[in-house]
Amino acid sequence: MANIVLSRQQFNVVGTRPIRHDGTDKVTGRALYGGDFRLPGMLYGKILRSPHAHARIRAIDTSAAEALPGVRAVVTAKDMPGADDRITDLGEGAVNLKYLSDNILASAKVLYKGHAVAAVAATDPHTAEEALKLIKVEYEVLPPVTRVRDAMQEGAPILLEGLRTTSMGQKGTAPTNIATHLHFEKGDTAKGFEQAEVIVEQEFETATVHQGYIEFHNATALWNTDGQLTVWCSTQGAFTVRDQLSQVLQHPVAKIKVVPLEIGGGFGGKIPLYVDPPAALLSRKTGKPVKIVMNRAEVFEATGPTPGSWMRVKVGATRDGKIVAAEASIAFEAGAYPGSAVGAACMCAFAPYDIEHGTVDGYDVVVNKPKSAAYRAPGATQAAFAVETVLDEIAEQLGLAPLEFRLRNAAKEGTRRIDGPVFNVIGNIECMEAARDSEHWKTPLEGPNRGRGVAQGYWFNVGLQSSCVISVNADGTVNLVEGSTDIGGTRASIAMQAAEVLGLRAEDVKPTVVDTDSIGYTNVTGGSRTTFATGWAAYEAAHDVLRQMKDRVARIWEANPDDITYEQGVFGVAGSPDRQMSFKELAAKLNHTGGPITGRASVDPQGHGGAFATHIVDVEVDPETGKVQILRYTAVQDAGKAIHPSYVEGQMQGGAVQGIGWALNEEYFMTERGAMANSTFLDYRMPTTLDLPMIDTIIVEVANPGHPFGARGVGEVPIVPPPAAIANAISRATGVRLRTLPMTPGAILKAKGVI
Amino acid sequence: MANIVLSRQQFNVVGTRPIRHDGTDKVTGRALYGGDFRLPGMLYGKILRSPHAHARIRAIDTSAAEALPGVRAVVTAKDMPGADDRITDLGEGAVNLKYLSDNILASAKVLYKGHAVAAVAATDPHTAEEALKLIKVEYEVLPPVTRVRDAMQEGAPILLEGLRTTSMGQKGTAPTNIATHLHFEKGDTAKGFEQAEVIVEQEFETATVHQGYIEFHNATALWNTDGQLTVWCSTQGAFTVRDQLSQVLQHPVAKIKVVPLEIGGGFGGKIPLYVDPPAALLSRKTGKPVKIVMNRAEVFEATGPTPGSWMRVKVGATRDGKIVAAEASIAFEAGAYPGSAVGAACMCAFAPYDIEHGTVDGYDVVVNKPKSAAYRAPGATQAAFAVETVLDEIAEQLGLAPLEFRLRNAAKEGTRRIDGPVFNVIGNIECMEAARDSEHWKTPLEGPNRGRGVAQGYWFNVGLQSSCVISVNADGTVNLVEGSTDIGGTRASIAMQAAEVLGLRAEDVKPTVVDTDSIGYTNVTGGSRTTFATGWAAYEAAHDVLRQMKDRVARIWEANPDDITYEQGVFGVAGSPDRQMSFKELAAKLNHTGGPITGRASVDPQGHGGAFATHIVDVEVDPETGKVQILRYTAVQDAGKAIHPSYVEGQMQGGAVQGIGWALNEEYFMTERGAMANSTFLDYRMPTTLDLPMIDTIIVEVANPGHPFGARGVGEVPIVPPPAAIANAISRATGVRLRTLPMTPGAILKAKGVI
Repeated sequence: MANIVLSRQQFNVVGTRPIRHDGTDKVTGRALYGGDFRLPGMLYGKILRSPHAHARIRAIDTSAAEALPGVRAVVTAKDMPGADDRITDLGEGAVNLKYLSDNILASAKVLYKGHAVAAVAATDPHTAEEALKLIKVEYEVLPPVTRVRDAMQEGAPILLEGLRTTSMGQKGTAPTNIATHLHFEKGDTAKGFEQAEVIVEQEFETATVHQGYIEFHNATALWNTDGQLTVWCSTQGAFTVRDQLSQVLQHPVAKIKVVPLEIGGGFGGKIPLYVDPPAALLSRKTGKPVKIVMNRAEVFEATGPTPGSWMRVKVGATRDGKIVAAEASIAFEAGAYPGSAVGAACMCAFAPYDIEHGTVDGYDVVVNKPKSAAYRAPGATQAAFAVETVLDEIAEQLGLAPLEFRLRNAAKEGTRRIDGPVFNVIGNIECMEAARDSEHWKTPLEGPNRGRGVAQGYWFNVGLQSSCVISVNADGTVNLVEGSTDIGGTRASIAMQAAEVLGLRAEDVKPTVVDTDSIGYTNVTGGSRTTFATGWAAYEAAHDVLRQMKDRVARIWEANPDDITYEQGVFGVAGSPDRQMSFKELAAKLNHTGGPITGRASVDPQGHGGAFATHIVDVEVDPETGKVQILRYTAVQDAGKAIHPSYVEGQMQGGAVQGIGWALNEEYFMTERGAMANSTFLDYRMPTTLDLPMIDTIIVEVANPGHPFGARGVGEVPIVPPPAAIANAISRATGVRLRTLPMTPGAILKAKGVI
Repeated sequence: MANIVLSRQQFNVVGTRPIRHDGTDKVTGRALYGGDFRLPGMLYGKILRSPHAHARIRAIDTSAAEALPGVRAVVTAKDMPGADDRITDLGEGAVNLKYLSDNILASAKVLYKGHAVAAVAATDPHTAEEALKLIKVEYEVLPPVTRVRDAMQEGAPILLEGLRTTSMGQKGTAPTNIATHLHFEKGDTAKGFEQAEVIVEQEFETATVHQGYIEFHNATALWNTDGQLTVWCSTQGAFTVRDQLSQVLQHPVAKIKVVPLEIGGGFGGKIPLYVDPPAALLSRKTGKPVKIVMNRAEVFEATGPTPGSWMRVKVGATRDGKIVAAEASIAFEAGAYPGSAVGAACMCAFAPYDIEHGTVDGYDVVVNKPKSAAYRAPGATQAAFAVETVLDEIAEQLGLAPLEFRLRNAAKEGTRRIDGPVFNVIGNIECMEAARDSEHWKTPLEGPNRGRGVAQGYWFNVGLQSSCVISVNADGTVNLVEGSTDIGGTRASIAMQAAEVLGLRAEDVKPTVVDTDSIGYTNVTGGSRTTFATGWAAYEAAHDVLRQMKDRVARIWEANPDDITYEQGVFGVAGSPDRQMSFKELAAKLNHTGGPITGRASVDPQGHGGAFATHIVDVEVDPETGKVQILRYTAVQDAGKAIHPSYVEGQMQGGAVQGIGWALNEEYFMTERGAMANSTFLDYRMPTTLDLPMIDTIIVEVANPGHPFGARGVGEVPIVPPPAAIANAISRATGVRLRTLPMTPGAILKAKGVI
């Protein structure tokens, strides 16, 4: 790896705001999304889904469906290759293959309403839908349990007969819905609380909410007669799709090509597979390409939302505002199969604070809801809602300004988190200070029923593998090939890092996201890793180009390669100021002086630094209706170095808005029978521009020493503070503290005792 | 570049016959050709072509066509950006941009029947065709000249008013159709002929023949509003299309992406652009994708066939069979614009022989026929037809067996060609000897009206630029990305070279041909360069992978990278025989030990060795009809090292069959008005399997010291000997020598004086 350059340095491209390379394609509708994708002779697939939240499948009779004219094939779990209980790592942690397979097509049981049971391919979508009605499934309906509290009770309906709790490396013996119990400890928590002069302990609940990406899940698969499977789909990571397909279909990765089409939002929810394996199996049966596209209800009912949670948080402090002990118990709804984000919640819960004694317990609990998935800083938002409102309450009791109290306890370089790791250089304090010094914070909020809240957020970010290849064109531009799905403008932020190294303009670097056959392994766009890690791969590949360019200059000039300099886009020789050749001039000569030049890099960087954010929000609560109006909102965040500040701001604004949705509006209304009652965007209310003020942004840059340009991931942490900040603001506006999300008008009126 | 390994070495993969990677796709009809390619909202383009072989364009009125419902745009030469007379190099030699542009859409004059004059885009192909009839072109018809002999005469109609002969670096002053006069000399030719005891001098003519690829030229273009142009097409070289488009459209290469679809044959004819620029201009005008596909008549009348020729060859030898002097004058029909293969003809004419004194003159002459293009060993077949029949005549006069005479004069390592270059290690003699020692040659040919002929052929081959990127998959397979259109099985022959280096099976290397945005610069598939040069890039990229794999093993084992060994697919440490890790085992560990591994290489190898071939043919000539039946045919050829012997044999057989077509059947029948009278496959007769015996092959392997595995290009030389070998066989069967191609039944009867 090349040397680290800290972001105090002046850059030519990094930190500027060029137009994104895919901008025109996106605004003119040329960009190819899965919904538009089509192959000659293509069949249309539809999925039959369970009407029950919990039932045993006694029998499936597909014969009538198969006999319907136009139907070409039907598949069920029987067509899924022998999935076993092996644990496999798909890049985002260990996964049980049987669960993975059963979530795609249910075998013995259905575990949520909407659970896929069979898939049909037909010559048109309407015939496929007709055929679904002809599939006869015999169910033995079982009582459902859809709330984490209830699922943890003795005597709760058991979802997975074989499930035993794994706790501290030990497996339990009794049937349970608690898949995992995590436990982290630092210092001596009981002793810590003994030192406390103020203790606040509260319980919290948060609702199941969905990422709500605009684009439905979709996949088109073609299984060729030589076993070569190609899948075109909307995904956050083509290689992850390849890996998962390889596992659930028991088919070698070398025989699978995944082509990532453009993606209309993911937020973590476009990492798991849903329709890809059935499409592949249907294609294998029919010999035709098969396309499956979900609709909105399917997305809500059968893809992964964020876990609902039940949390208890206890914090103790001294009178002078020093936190001495903290404790959290966090139970998450994994959904139908184990694997919620509770681990991340435990890691993030108290991360912004330097606490000597602390304990965090986490519980991963299965319930009769769709298997939860990652959703932007998975788990951190729930935990921050609990922790940051408890801290606010303590500050209030101590008579300390909320930012002042947080600053006194802020984690910094060298602080050890309760779950173990020690922070490197972080911008936690700098974000709090920037918030405290902001125009927003310094401007008093006046008027009745109004309140200002603040909250801190943390997300650890990840690194993982990325690959990049750069080729030099004869006109002095370069082509950059990468494998990271571009969700938030990463074509630009990656290209810019190559441009910086090569002394080119961002526009001179042409980025292309290619399929899994055409680039080295690259992990998902997730974990706020893409600009950080794929950008780093671009940085290294650009250096690989530059090294070869210097060798070429040396060859042309018959000089020593070590003497070749490159500054401001011009090659020179040390000691010969008259010898000059621009990048463009050299590019034009390559094909006659030894051939073209290609640079490559594959990286697995470890130095992803954590990201912190401080959000300030002013609200006004209508005393009669309980409706919360966001008056002003400022998001402060440490980006390390903002590669493309506009897209950093976009992430900050987008994250804040989603967090506002969690805070005020969004939730799965579950019926008693375990069905989602609001699976449309009319009933599931996400914030719109009409509900929101402009989200102001303040980018803090505390250079990440673990990245060549000092960059940190920025995509996730902005969703973490909003629910807590808004709850704190509501408390100041109304005098009541809300501890359940969402904080709807009804909930506020109830808390105020109005209704 | 890594060390050269000579082909005496034993290889594991090189030299075996694995199934081609694209085999299933091709035989099941899945492979995507341009004819099948389609985009949403696509328009269909058609080309208006000149009915005259030579005319001035007075005016073009497109208004009626534009007014036709369904027509979206019309373009003419006026829409072509200001092409000037700049000379540009498009990888296959210098090109005049004005000529290039005018050949795509005629501006001041049309120079052949079928010359494109305008293009229409409409909502369906029929409307586009209707619209063509509504375009009014006012022509001033001029007399055409379609034969090279006539075009060189004083007073011949002049095609290009500004054309002056370039001869030995000097430009002439008078208007002419002779674009270039080349002159090569070695020794003192006059003195050489003074030493000769036998001299034969003859004149020859060969017909215009077409490559006859099955697939029509096609292109689909999408010009986006941000200036980004994407072209999907059938081409031998995506980067050459990009370069040419950039030139004729005056549009930066960085704004052009060319996606090479599968190609249904090229043979040199799919290098120039025809329909791509009009499709691009129509797309720019309409904002829609536009697809243009030629039909067979358009392919014949408006794309580049091989030049017809007029040649004079004189050779002198001593009584003991030593050639002492040689002379050739070769005039080629360039077609409408300068630039035939006459230079290559001059280089190849006498190349198989060590001749002390020699002179070769070449003439590039414009005539009112479509601009000629490359056709498999361009120019060499015509020259060999003349030279090899003259040599045969001398051998006959000297009473020497034809192979014996050739062997006495054969060029070898160190021999200087008349045009200058000195041979490195070549397999010329080895081919002649293998032919002489073959079962075919040793078996006497019996029966009346039968004769056996032999001829030698040479093609110099080229190197040029190629790029390759290889990524390692976790299952121990690798993905290989390259930019060479696969015409004859090069996915396999390139992948095999990577597999050899990496100790993998050919099947474990998955090759993909990608677009110009996704790989480094790669020249056309042509010049018999692809297995040689792109294979070399694969070899180097594989070594780049291997170096990194060794470093990784060293890191895992905490050993010195220099001590890591790799043999038979297993890594080890020198001195520690118990430490072993297979490629596959290491591949599975990469993502957790430093990340994935990608190798890259771009090469411009110079050591392409020349290729030689000796063909033996037995014929029977029907004395009544003059029909020639090929009884037996053996092609001997030096492949250096046959990477995939089946595909080498396929090239040898295919080349021989095309040469048989030139020899016996194929020609453009031109009417007096300069129109091609036989522009269908019913009238233009190519050989079919019913006309041919099995073509036997003998691969000779004289390792090319200029390639890691000793490979030489094999695609072109097999077309060189057939016409001469067949003419020599006919001479023995009938007693008459034919000196005009094709040698049709009528021509034979005429030569025999029967009719």
